[in-house]
Amino acid sequence: MSKVGIIMGSKSDLPVMQDAIDILKDFDIDIEVDIVSAHRTPEKLFDYSKNAHTRGIKVIIAGAGGAAHLPGMVASLSPLPIIGVPVKSSNSIDGWDSVLSILQMPGGVPVATVALNGAKNAGILAAQIIGSADKNVLNKIIEYKEGLKAKVYDSAKDL
Amino acid sequence: MSKVGIIMGSKSDLPVMQDAIDILKDFDIDIEVDIVSAHRTPEKLFDYSKNAHTRGIKVIIAGAGGAAHLPGMVASLSPLPIIGVPVKSSNSIDGWDSVLSILQMPGGVPVATVALNGAKNAGILAAQIIGSADKNVLNKIIEYKEGLKAKVYDSAKDL
Amino acid sequence: MSKVGIIMGSKSDLPVMQDAIDILKDFDIDIEVDIVSAHRTPEKLFDYSKNAHTRGIKVIIAGAGGAAHLPGMVASLSPLPIIGVPVKSSNSIDGWDSVLSILQMPGGVPVATVALNGAKNAGILAAQIIGSADKNVLNKIIEYKEGLKAKVYDSAKDL
Amino acid sequence: MSKVGIIMGSKSDLPVMQDAIDILKDFDIDIEVDIVSAHRTPEKLFDYSKNAHTRGIKVIIAGAGGAAHLPGMVASLSPLPIIGVPVKSSNSIDGWDSVLSILQMPGGVPVATVALNGAKNAGILAAQIIGSADKNVLNKIIEYKEGLKAKVYDSAKDL
Amino acid sequence: MSKVGIIMGSKSDLPVMQDAIDILKDFDIDIEVDIVSAHRTPEKLFDYSKNAHTRGIKVIIAGAGGAAHLPGMVASLSPLPIIGVPVKSSNSIDGWDSVLSILQMPGGVPVATVALNGAKNAGILAAQIIGSADKNVLNKIIEYKEGLKAKVYDSAKDL
Amino acid sequence: MSKVGIIMGSKSDLPVMQDAIDILKDFDIDIEVDIVSAHRTPEKLFDYSKNAHTRGIKVIIAGAGGAAHLPGMVASLSPLPIIGVPVKSSNSIDGWDSVLSILQMPGGVPVATVALNGAKNAGILAAQIIGSADKNVLNKIIEYKEGLKAKVYDSAKDL
Amino acid sequence: MSKVGIIMGSKSDLPVMQDAIDILKDFDIDIEVDIVSAHRTPEKLFDYSKNAHTRGIKVIIAGAGGAAHLPGMVASLSPLPIIGVPVKSSNSIDGWDSVLSILQMPGGVPVATVALNGAKNAGILAAQIIGSADKNVLNKIIEYKEGLKAKVYDSAKDL
Amino acid sequence: MSKVGIIMGSKSDLPVMQDAIDILKDFDIDIEVDIVSAHRTPEKLFDYSKNAHTRGIKVIIAGAGGAAHLPGMVASLSPLPIIGVPVKSSNSIDGWDSVLSILQMPGGVPVATVALNGAKNAGILAAQIIGSADKNVLNKIIEYKEGLKAKVYDSAKDL
Repeated sequence: MSKVGIIMGSKSDLPVMQDAIDILKDFDIDIEVDIVSAHRTPEKLFDYSKNAHTRGIKVIIAGAGGAAHLPGMVASLSPLPIIGVPVKSSNSIDGWDSVLSILQMPGGVPVATVALNGAKNAGILAAQIIGSADKNVLNKIIEYKEGLKAKVYDSAKDL
Repeated sequence: MSKVGIIMGSKSDLPVMQDAIDILKDFDIDIEVDIVSAHRTPEKLFDYSKNAHTRGIKVIIAGAGGAAHLPGMVASLSPLPIIGVPVKSSNSIDGWDSVLSILQMPGGVPVATVALNGAKNAGILAAQIIGSADKNVLNKIIEYKEGLKAKVYDSAKDL
Repeated sequence: MSKVGIIMGSKSDLPVMQDAIDILKDFDIDIEVDIVSAHRTPEKLFDYSKNAHTRGIKVIIAGAGGAAHLPGMVASLSPLPIIGVPVKSSNSIDGWDSVLSILQMPGGVPVATVALNGAKNAGILAAQIIGSADKNVLNKIIEYKEGLKAKVYDSAKDL
Repeated sequence: MSKVGIIMGSKSDLPVMQDAIDILKDFDIDIEVDIVSAHRTPEKLFDYSKNAHTRGIKVIIAGAGGAAHLPGMVASLSPLPIIGVPVKSSNSIDGWDSVLSILQMPGGVPVATVALNGAKNAGILAAQIIGSADKNVLNKIIEYKEGLKAKVYDSAKDL
Repeated sequence: MSKVGIIMGSKSDLPVMQDAIDILKDFDIDIEVDIVSAHRTPEKLFDYSKNAHTRGIKVIIAGAGGAAHLPGMVASLSPLPIIGVPVKSSNSIDGWDSVLSILQMPGGVPVATVALNGAKNAGILAAQIIGSADKNVLNKIIEYKEGLKAKVYDSAKDL
Repeated sequence: MSKVGIIMGSKSDLPVMQDAIDILKDFDIDIEVDIVSAHRTPEKLFDYSKNAHTRGIKVIIAGAGGAAHLPGMVASLSPLPIIGVPVKSSNSIDGWDSVLSILQMPGGVPVATVALNGAKNAGILAAQIIGSADKNVLNKIIEYKEGLKAKVYDSAKDL
Repeated sequence: MSKVGIIMGSKSDLPVMQDAIDILKDFDIDIEVDIVSAHRTPEKLFDYSKNAHTRGIKVIIAGAGGAAHLPGMVASLSPLPIIGVPVKSSNSIDGWDSVLSILQMPGGVPVATVALNGAKNAGILAAQIIGSADKNVLNKIIEYKEGLKAKVYDSAKDL
Repeated sequence: MSKVGIIMGSKSDLPVMQDAIDILKDFDIDIEVDIVSAHRTPEKLFDYSKNAHTRGIKVIIAGAGGAAHLPGMVASLSPLPIIGVPVKSSNSIDGWDSVLSILQMPGGVPVATVALNGAKNAGILAAQIIGSADKNVLNKIIEYKEGLKAKVYDSAKDL
């Protein structure tokens, strides 16, 4: 079955990355969560990235803060689509460091970057990627969007 | 057959977006290119986005500059994964406007953002998304990455 | 009678947008408040924007945060003057995302942008636009400015 | 008849501000062009701003670069809607100085800010403000937008 | 006797501007404090700026936040040296707006800008300007600098 | 007689700093020009700064680019008012480095900062500082401002 | 024995700089801590920098905030490798001022800059510099990196 | 003998990195130059970084542009001091991306960052690191600094 790998550079990224975990559970998509640090566990980064696609993982979501090299290095080593989540960490310069470290990848090695702390959108994007080839998941996306719409209509009534 | 839709806000974006067209042709992936302006042809934006997934398009690449609303609006209307290419247009404030207008989407409506003028990476990412469920394309990605590697080794010899 | 339409992308924008509501009430100008999300209710966006000018609305104030597409998309669909209020939302990159997404519109489709969280000024600007063709409202603006002046003179006395 | 006042801080702003002149001529709206420098001709700034609304001017477009105080000072002195055009002058810090000097006005004194060098949009916005109370001009705006749309459709055919 | 004029755009700037008042009192330099708003009391701005040098004021310190036009407009109207203090106000975009609005003055009309919220340094600079032609004040500056030095040596002993 | 010291960190700053030299010559104020590098000639920096006020210099203008430490270090060592000119050097990050290195001085040690490349304004400010205690120079400033005004009126006639 | 000199511009920098002290103690490397202010104690800066290498100091770590001139001025005066720590001080513009004042040194006078508030990394870098010629210290670095790795593996188990 | 390893992410970085090569040759320090791409040759990155210290390399200089991960990844894998050179590449956002990707490393894994395109300073810093334990090289640094000083004195004579 299709699986999404969710990794983060440090356990301190979990409060942000939890949003990706939650939304993918809502979509009934299998996930696998791990901590992989580009800077402290480079060997694990290598193993993880080289092998993910061979054991059923279809998309990888990688979150990191500061000089965030994790998403780009996974993209360097894996043929899968990689989604990068810039995390606003404590000593970040307003989040610009993680945004630019993830977004501005050189030609040849893309990272699908989402908004600062945008782990929820990373989860939805992963689902859309799976849905791109899986009618069942695509329909869940369509349904999810209808739900978003309904909530706005409801909140407008409250005005 | 899987197709990638490539749209841009203005014909002036074509020199940048051509890189996406070229790389997808290299991967033998079917593409469909069009000009759709969020601000000048909103009805076309609606039609295009609502129907793309019903006629075999699996991923949409949308490029735009300045206050770049095209990728986000397509993401609002389509259940497909949307890749946004921030284009550095002539009166842009150093490209920050298009980057932030595309990247910072609200929770619920992701856009997979690539680097400023990074249309080539948008094409590769689209191929990776298709490759996620298509062994043949996945293998082309693996091969492509081997090619990148070989070129670096060659250029190192020249030093 | 002249009316000002006030819309916002999410109910969470209301604390900021309330300043526009309050100042327009002070000017005795009719208002109509609604929640319209460019990304979650695109159909409502279309209906609202296409028809506002046909039912007596003379100016539209649209507030949104992050990749704020609401003001620009309303401007795309309506012939009325559109005032955009960049809202500093929770995951904003210091407000730069909403400011640039609203301000940097392409040639042909202007949005009259006010300061970050500047909903009060959006309300005054809407009144000035109506006052441009309505002596009564113009006089209220002149009076309002006299009031601002008086308050500064008073506060200077307190020093 | 309704008139739009167009002023700029220096003759060197004319190449940018010409776009506002041209588009308003296209809309057959009367204009009055002048050079008024907040920093070098403060008395003229006072006279101009205090009296513009008494001689038929309905909207003022003010363009300036660097620490651009002209639009805000006119807004301080006139009850009319003021449109500010940030001009990217030669020693500007990438245009940020003129954008922020015009946009970030304090509560009570709005300036309707358009994009960096966006004089064309300033002209269209001025027309929309007049059109807000003048059916004839409103129809010209609607027609203009149809023209924009047609050009995009044409350029799409060329692809 | 030499006097320093201290003005600010709003009473809310007083907590920041108090540092200028305090340090000038420490130097026994006569001061005159007032609230003058460029945007709300433009006539007072004119009177103040045109006449300050005729009644013994030798330097003017002007503090303001956001689109801070006060220092530049005083500089436009007065022949005296004007010191600008960028104040970080509540809706400021991280202080960049007030810094750039004060610093980036066009050729011909300088403002001596100090650091964000740097009212203390504005006071010292005013004293230095007076001290430039007044031995007594110059000696106080020299003494003040010796005091700064002594404090650092003391704090180093505490380590 | 009152003199203005003009120093710069490198001969490559001369094209920018020439504007200060020229305007002070126009005002018939004595100047003394030198190259003093904070980073390459720290001993000269010490000698220059410690002694300038003892040989008739009343104000020092210091220009530098990049991590521009010259103005602040002179301010550390001299009791005179120091004017800093941020120079946009070749490898500068858009001039932000020199602006912030000069502007953001700590409490106790002010530098009167002018606009990026604003050497002309540095010269005028130096004249204003001397004029603050010298009627003759003050009158030249008043006259100079009248000249600026006249030029704007002339250029307005050409429109 | 090899020693690392740790200096800071103000005692208020100590909470940040303590991380450098602690990590160097962990590595059993001799340190010498002092307060040296470029702007308030320039003579001490001279003495310290000119002589440090003559009394066994091998690397200097200098931390400062705002217009942070300390690291660069020490680099100007000492032949040793200088590590600069940008400190985010209270009136800093988001830390950009200290980062750019330390990083953007002119050709000829390098400062080894670490992340904003990155005193811990400054300490590790100092150890690495000593370790570059000292097997014993190099081995401690290798061991330290193994410890970092182990902690990540442990935290991954907790997920 | 002590050697400095100089690597860069792409041959297009050579014109910038040549400055490091040249200055180290001037100091008669052995160098080894190679192209190692974090994103295209991750295996080479691993081999290079893991083994450099075992074959006599004492310092590594790594230059890269955009989302520049090379310096940080080498720092992750090698116990040596790593000097990072942010290169302003063609699609860079004004160099901010490479600066922040290299500078903002997490605690535990420092990169000694120099100015944008500051390869010359990277070379000097490498020499200073070797000089820290090598009197001969230290003396060359002292001599080099005397040379810088002499050039400034000469250029001052030309004024």
